[in-house]
Amino acid sequence: MQVMNDEFYMSLALDMAERAQGQTGINPVVGCVVVKDGAVVGLGTHLKRGTGHAEVHALNMAGEQAKGGTAYVTLEPCSHYGITPPCSERLITEGVARVVVACEDPNPQVAGRGIAMLRSAGIEVEVGLLKERALRLNERFIKYILTRKPFVTLKSASTLDGKIGTRTGDSKWISNEEARAIVHTLRHRHQGIMVGVGTVLADNPSLTTRTEVPGINPVRIVIDSKLRTPLDAAVVADGQAPTIVIAADSADPAKEAALTAAGVKVLRCGAGPRVDLTAAMKALGELEIGSVLLEGGGELNGAMLEQGLVDRVTLFFAPKIVGGRAEAPSAFSWDGVALMKDAVTLEQVEVEVLGDNVCITGRPASSGNA
Amino acid sequence: MQVMNDEFYMSLALDMAERAQGQTGINPVVGCVVVKDGAVVGLGTHLKRGTGHAEVHALNMAGEQAKGGTAYVTLEPCSHYGITPPCSERLITEGVARVVVACEDPNPQVAGRGIAMLRSAGIEVEVGLLKERALRLNERFIKYILTRKPFVTLKSASTLDGKIGTRTGDSKWISNEEARAIVHTLRHRHQGIMVGVGTVLADNPSLTTRTEVPGINPVRIVIDSKLRTPLDAAVVADGQAPTIVIAADSADPAKEAALTAAGVKVLRCGAGPRVDLTAAMKALGELEIGSVLLEGGGELNGAMLEQGLVDRVTLFFAPKIVGGRAEAPSAFSWDGVALMKDAVTLEQVEVEVLGDNVCITGRPASSGNA
Repeated sequence: MQVMNDEFYMSLALDMAERAQGQTGINPVVGCVVVKDGAVVGLGTHLKRGTGHAEVHALNMAGEQAKGGTAYVTLEPCSHYGITPPCSERLITEGVARVVVACEDPNPQVAGRGIAMLRSAGIEVEVGLLKERALRLNERFIKYILTRKPFVTLKSASTLDGKIGTRTGDSKWISNEEARAIVHTLRHRHQGIMVGVGTVLADNPSLTTRTEVPGINPVRIVIDSKLRTPLDAAVVADGQAPTIVIAADSADPAKEAALTAAGVKVLRCGAGPRVDLTAAMKALGELEIGSVLLEGGGELNGAMLEQGLVDRVTLFFAPKIVGGRAEAPSAFSWDGVALMKDAVTLEQVEVEVLGDNVCITGRPASSGNA
Repeated sequence: MQVMNDEFYMSLALDMAERAQGQTGINPVVGCVVVKDGAVVGLGTHLKRGTGHAEVHALNMAGEQAKGGTAYVTLEPCSHYGITPPCSERLITEGVARVVVACEDPNPQVAGRGIAMLRSAGIEVEVGLLKERALRLNERFIKYILTRKPFVTLKSASTLDGKIGTRTGDSKWISNEEARAIVHTLRHRHQGIMVGVGTVLADNPSLTTRTEVPGINPVRIVIDSKLRTPLDAAVVADGQAPTIVIAADSADPAKEAALTAAGVKVLRCGAGPRVDLTAAMKALGELEIGSVLLEGGGELNGAMLEQGLVDRVTLFFAPKIVGGRAEAPSAFSWDGVALMKDAVTLEQVEVEVLGDNVCITGRPASSGNA
């Protein structure tokens, strides 16, 4: 049983924020609980970019009762006039006596100013309760607000010998239903989903979010140097979600015209024969795609990882072993490192057991996640 | 808190048996708790082959108090005169009123007869409490008693892309200290430890048990078709434990003589150019080696797995990715299956999180473990 204390309320605020992942675009997810005289008087969560912040919803619900109460907020209240007025000002106006904040807002427009504003108004402020969980929840927001490039989650499902198919290319199915259900939840939580054209040609996936309850489809992104994506591919023809195809500068303009006519947005990134993936991430950021789920094959995964463009690796393992030496495709295919000490090493590792499958996730040390 | 009930005592008996793993040779590990009038009156565990069974130790401790009491035993009490008199008889003689048994003894010499003997003497017998845990604890004993071939545990430490080294062969270190401590505990729990000669030549390992408290060294077994094991290899020269080298029939007799002179036992298995692994397992069984920890490279692991000689796969994963396509060695190297549905699939999967490493273990479906 969870005892009543600050954590008791903050964890509820975090639970609320967690449920809103995927629906706030490039905005953070935030939860707020307002408590007065031993009772919850207001609950709020940020629901959608351009609409009320968590504190606003919670204070609206609390009304007069916020006065003298405590507000638990998962992210530092904002201090600037953005699409909405600053939440710090609102907390002061309502007469809240104490504010507990899980983590500071890394947004350079806030970065401690919200907390300072509250304190100078005489409000007692505590910072850092359940901070790790709060930062984890907004890792996609944090990356984008600081770099204007999307947070990339590389997802793959492997056998225990690191294969994503047998020597004949057979790959259906590797992971179990529980793992696949998580993948669809991850799709909902990312603004974009990215594959290589090889995956489109081999599997013709729709790349949509198929969850038990309705979910949001990510924008489909295909890395396709030579514009080989067929016009009858599901990602072009099914109308389920917008699609962006990223080609090298040298790709056939006629193919671009045909794809554009079919409703696809074509971007050009890369003077060489292949797409410049760093430039591609920058271009996606400029389109306000703040998070991308990478469901590539081994070559695209390897290239993205090698170039330091992956922020999180999420691997599902099924208890299968298929052998097949070099013929069976690996989840990560690139020339590789020479020394074990130079391996791409994951940090902040989390492990989840899903029946007889396992999910291992962490952040590449090179992604500057410290 | 664990409440007082049958499970309360049986789990203690299992805990005791568990601690004795590795010290009973081809015998099972067994624990026994005797309870009378709400108090533990006797505790016993089988400590060593040829010495008293668990029940005997517990009944000796209980003395007169066993009369009318309950005995919790992790394995069906024996019914035959072996090295010691039958435990069922002893339980009857002591006047125990009730016996709770975790699992039946698969030994064809017992196989229900012990339970029948108790029941016909009027003792109340219950069978099956915590059965799965009890079977798991004695899986090595069960395989050997039924087949006279060793139970083989394949252990490997991989990166998340299934590699056991980088493209240059560098492999120090992959797993963390916690994982390596478990490996040494596994060595203690197996009678033999097996590698290919390639590992001897590359790493010159001692293959001993190095635990914080003293442990038992397994017999070292080297699969070495052409008898390339050097006389100055640690497994030959260090005198830490017996060593068996298994060669093909065609290997040079002069090399065999030199190894034999150095104290190594050389076995010949295989009329072809390579060791016949099935015959090798049979030969080891004849030497009363009932369990083998396989710490092979990818080729030996792949061959053993492909030939259905592996009873348990225990894989440690470190959160590293090294790439290296075919050049970086895999934990399992063989031609491989064509279809994902034909993958070697692990059953009874268990996952343990060890800091940022993960241990996944299970039994290949083909090992007939159902």
